[in-house]
Amino acid sequence: MQTELSSRLGAEHALFGFTPFPAVAAAITRAGGVGVLGAVRYTDPGALRRDLEWLDAQTGGLPYGLDVVMPVERAEGVTEADVEAMIPEEHRRFVRDTLAKHGVPELPAGEDGGWRITGWLESVARTQLDVAFDHPVALLASALGPPPADVVARSHAQGVPVAALAGTARHARRHREAGIDIVVAQGYEAGGHTGEIATMVLTPEVVRAVDPLPVLAAGGIGSGEQLAAALALGAQGGWLGSVWLTTREAGLHARALTRKLLAAGSGDTVRSRALTGKPARQLRTAWTDAWDDAEGPGPLPMPLQGLLVAEANARIQRWEVEPLLGTPVGQIVGSMNSERSVQSVVDELTRGFERAVTRLRRLTGEGG
Amino acid sequence: MQTELSSRLGAEHALFGFTPFPAVAAAITRAGGVGVLGAVRYTDPGALRRDLEWLDAQTGGLPYGLDVVMPVERAEGVTEADVEAMIPEEHRRFVRDTLAKHGVPELPAGEDGGWRITGWLESVARTQLDVAFDHPVALLASALGPPPADVVARSHAQGVPVAALAGTARHARRHREAGIDIVVAQGYEAGGHTGEIATMVLTPEVVRAVDPLPVLAAGGIGSGEQLAAALALGAQGGWLGSVWLTTREAGLHARALTRKLLAAGSGDTVRSRALTGKPARQLRTAWTDAWDDAEGPGPLPMPLQGLLVAEANARIQRWEVEPLLGTPVGQIVGSMNSERSVQSVVDELTRGFERAVTRLRRLTGEGG
Repeated sequence: MQTELSSRLGAEHALFGFTPFPAVAAAITRAGGVGVLGAVRYTDPGALRRDLEWLDAQTGGLPYGLDVVMPVERAEGVTEADVEAMIPEEHRRFVRDTLAKHGVPELPAGEDGGWRITGWLESVARTQLDVAFDHPVALLASALGPPPADVVARSHAQGVPVAALAGTARHARRHREAGIDIVVAQGYEAGGHTGEIATMVLTPEVVRAVDPLPVLAAGGIGSGEQLAAALALGAQGGWLGSVWLTTREAGLHARALTRKLLAAGSGDTVRSRALTGKPARQLRTAWTDAWDDAEGPGPLPMPLQGLLVAEANARIQRWEVEPLLGTPVGQIVGSMNSERSVQSVVDELTRGFERAVTRLRRLTGEGG
Repeated sequence: MQTELSSRLGAEHALFGFTPFPAVAAAITRAGGVGVLGAVRYTDPGALRRDLEWLDAQTGGLPYGLDVVMPVERAEGVTEADVEAMIPEEHRRFVRDTLAKHGVPELPAGEDGGWRITGWLESVARTQLDVAFDHPVALLASALGPPPADVVARSHAQGVPVAALAGTARHARRHREAGIDIVVAQGYEAGGHTGEIATMVLTPEVVRAVDPLPVLAAGGIGSGEQLAAALALGAQGGWLGSVWLTTREAGLHARALTRKLLAAGSGDTVRSRALTGKPARQLRTAWTDAWDDAEGPGPLPMPLQGLLVAEANARIQRWEVEPLLGTPVGQIVGSMNSERSVQSVVDELTRGFERAVTRLRRLTGEGG
């Protein structure tokens, strides 16, 4: 499963695996893909440094990437308290009431409230980059919009290509104009922030829009057949996120969330603003239903919603409150039916890819 | 582009083209695919007979199909007047007001109001079948749910395989239990009635669900690369509807609707209940916006909505009232940028398919 892009990055497979877990990123890279670590939760640069050092040791020179969230619009001098002050009391009450309705306990004293808004602030993203460039990062990815020009320039000066996610051909062209090297076309069926255009339509559209830049297809890819389809559509590889959530390396095994993911069908996700304020595909839960209910106050815009629900989500996850428990995940969740190692997922992707190519070859009259 | 299924039906290409226009169906079949004529508008069996006789003459023994709409639930003795009586006055007023707001004139005296509810009634669908079985129809397709058991049995007795559309794996399994021979997996990005699961995810899910029945992929297929992707996903062919709308044979050329279709991007469709009461993807227009507006009365359930808006749609189409003018169409509308003959569409599909297969072959180290 090699393309020009995967060869250039020194990977065996044109398989880019996004994950918030260093152990998963390391295993993807060791299995021949490019593990891409999500940096958003690293508000402490020291923690990121420690995890990248561990990744370096685990991957022994094989390529891995880092995914940062860096809004182009700067919010100079804006603190978390400033943003907190913008949240209406009605919404705070709705969070309290919904948690109370489901009997969600408080966090134990001293336990971390998890994800904070600060990971989304440019100042924090810049400290992440300072750390990243001390390490042999093979790819810098930007999850929301293109990074600022100076960051692209700095990345290029270090010889690190920059990738950015796009949900429309227009976004993709904007990325190209910003000097981005690789565009990730993220289809409607993908987990996380996603637009309305499905991968089948979006991928060739983005390929045409940014030609000759390489494009990775994201959304709807969890098998080798789906990866082959993405390459048939003109992509130079697949960008996979959901499929790793139920791997052993994700460390969620035997937990309620894993059970929900393994049981979910392709129709059990929803594109909701409940998580961050922008539409993001995730497991449909009583929590997303409450936010999407026309009777409720509805989600706030980004970044307010993320800040509003951060502690609530930490409590839901901490106590594994089943009806509310969710995660960003794509429609391929329906095919995630057993807990496996990253290596076995990659092996199955490789086999499925070969099957699909053989099948197509046979249909065109060769070998069949 | 041949598969076991296309060979069995005697077609050169695994390309199934759904269209309401006999001239398009004939051209698809002559170009090596299987043209499938939509029968819903034939409330007069004589008109259907004339068009099938014409199709027979045009296709000279090459395979074509017929698509009927046949609800499984019988509504014995229900007349159009009974259904009319169920429409609230508020909704009738909303139609009048919306048409008046855009200055839509009445139909000229004596001109047909177009599509009527009767095409959706089982009694009418059965007269269509009586006509169809007098002709060498190679495929009977059912657009909404599986046809009744006796229709499947009659079709099989005539040696005609039956296809049915499915938006979920559950629907597909229900079709298999009903004795259906071919399942059309219709993804979220498709034009017309469609579910929430994208083609990339739905196709392999349906293939697994009904194995070893052949599956056709619908939704997101307008190029040979997309057809190759569908086959990589396990489909035995593509079911294409939108791409024919801007062909010369559709006879819409130089008309306002064609101009709108050629100008539309992939983001210019919406999945709306405005047309029939069930979610159907179509061009987004001021008309769909009015129905989807939370301030308005909202669409009625099927079949009431279709009956309510039939005459309004006929007037909008008759006078080509640009802001309101729409049609069912999928997200691939973004790639429909020039008016061409059916033959040239098929030629381009074939070339694109070969390109995609060659590309995949090269990636796996052969010939590259």
